[in-house]
Amino acid sequence: MVYANIEEANNAVVSKIIAGSPFLLDVVPAKEVIDELNHGKVLLHAGPPITYDKMIDPVQGACIGAALFEGWADNEDDARALMESGEVDLIPCHHVDAVGPMGGITSAHMPVFIVENRTDGNRTYCTMNEGIGAVLRFGANGPEVINRLRWMRDVLGPTLSLALQIREPLNVNVLVAKAIAMGDEFHQRNIAASLVFLKEMAPSIVKLDIDPKDKEDVIQFLADTDQFFLNIMMASAKSVMDGARQIHEGTIVTAMCRNGYEFGIRIAGMGDEWFTGPVNIPKGLYFSGFSEEDASPDMGDSAITETFGVGGFA
Amino acid sequence: MVYANIEEANNAVVSKIIAGSPFLLDVVPAKEVIDELNHGKVLLHAGPPITYDKMIDPVQGACIGAALFEGWADNEDDARALMESGEVDLIPCHHVDAVGPMGGITSAHMPVFIVENRTDGNRTYCTMNEGIGAVLRFGANGPEVINRLRWMRDVLGPTLSLALQIREPLNVNVLVAKAIAMGDEFHQRNIAASLVFLKEMAPSIVKLDIDPKDKEDVIQFLADTDQFFLNIMMASAKSVMDGARQIHEGTIVTAMCRNGYEFGIRIAGMGDEWFTGPVNIPKGLYFSGFSEEDASPDMGDSAITETFGVGGFA
Repeated sequence: MVYANIEEANNAVVSKIIAGSPFLLDVVPAKEVIDELNHGKVLLHAGPPITYDKMIDPVQGACIGAALFEGWADNEDDARALMESGEVDLIPCHHVDAVGPMGGITSAHMPVFIVENRTDGNRTYCTMNEGIGAVLRFGANGPEVINRLRWMRDVLGPTLSLALQIREPLNVNVLVAKAIAMGDEFHQRNIAASLVFLKEMAPSIVKLDIDPKDKEDVIQFLADTDQFFLNIMMASAKSVMDGARQIHEGTIVTAMCRNGYEFGIRIAGMGDEWFTGPVNIPKGLYFSGFSEEDASPDMGDSAITETFGVGGFA
Repeated sequence: MVYANIEEANNAVVSKIIAGSPFLLDVVPAKEVIDELNHGKVLLHAGPPITYDKMIDPVQGACIGAALFEGWADNEDDARALMESGEVDLIPCHHVDAVGPMGGITSAHMPVFIVENRTDGNRTYCTMNEGIGAVLRFGANGPEVINRLRWMRDVLGPTLSLALQIREPLNVNVLVAKAIAMGDEFHQRNIAASLVFLKEMAPSIVKLDIDPKDKEDVIQFLADTDQFFLNIMMASAKSVMDGARQIHEGTIVTAMCRNGYEFGIRIAGMGDEWFTGPVNIPKGLYFSGFSEEDASPDMGDSAITETFGVGGFA
């Protein structure tokens, strides 16, 4: 016991959350920073630990998409059979310094943001936002989805990486301070933050000595993707919470996440242990013709933004 | 009398304000759209009519800067003598479908936005925002200011024009609807609107077949200029108010502006007549070491945003 009581421990954890200073450093293939992705067939997923058979349809669909993207299979049936065989190791993003939106499925060749919490020196990772429509994070795995993932691997990721190398690392707190004054809450609403991110990056992207078509496509994608900043915010929130939970005392919740089957939390004083319960189905407005009957249980690591928010902004 | 009483006339004017639909069409040299600038030496200024001798220092300084920019003189003394000679005609921006920020000094070769109010078919014009620091609108006229004006004439204006030609005209109401939800009020605060403007224009700018350095400089300038949208908003507000004041009845104020000497208003039922009074010195926070003693009386056509706001948003 370093601290006299729970309140003191909690104050220490919260102080670390408030002092967190995430910087966006780079975008690289996931396998370059997450060693576990280099040992056989491995996928990361959102939420607490889970086996493939317990995964809900959208998460299984995302696994199949990732298998196709990685070239482990060349059709959906083979990819599904591979997943069902148990040959693919499944690891929670949270176990490897990462977070993933919705299904959270992350594979070796997907580009990830690298965020460093300069207060504590720890680094975290998150894939890039795919935009809206048919996307892997919701379980879509058709050619449109896989082709976009290839473009993100071959163009979007490398371009943002190059652009980040010719400017200062992006100070996330400064960007958040601007966007919070424009109404963002950084989970459901990242419209201002995504605009400020475009403003920060566009001058560097335009300067790059790369295929002009790639510049156009990247600028257009960033301009079209109102939630692009979410994934940067997720990695940033994770970086701050992981810095704070280096204090292994107290009762502050340091992670909240869902895998579509269970909701899991971590608590500072309980280290890496997961506490789980059944996950809820979101109550809310549905597109016309749909209701809660059609809904999937909640999933994704994006609740790290609220975990951070409760401690950091409260 | 088309309307039964003042209230009916006022309702008709306000209905036109509410129905206004400004679109940004192009950026061109002022003389291409304001014929008066083609007849001898002519400068436009903000506010109601005024003579050079009545202009306050910042506005005189801007006149001198414009004379240098137009090549009417090659040094400040000669430019001042020219202005004092009365050889340069001075016309209010408002008399030629234009508005100008602060001094509002507009000359033939300065690029102006063209905004069309598609509800009424009328067009209006405004110079582009120069950014912050030493700028003509506050009366600065040194080499840094004149060189920036030349760059705006040679690069910024033509680039935005080309970019606007390869996309749809910019629907200002749509942009305003987004930015108002991010806290802009479109006079003192245009930070979100300027970001959305960058987002709208950047993809087209990047596509242009022009000198790559010009693309970089334009994107950087837009990214750095938080108030860039103000001048588009001013032309837009003017376009809507000019559409509305085609109704020559009622008591709705259709223009408010200042020239540093007088504050002037126009009223729908009184057509082009100006009603003026002495202008105030702004009360507010000053940079440390300065007070109201150091302040200039209020100036500029930017109060067209409040004129529009009171009628349009209220």
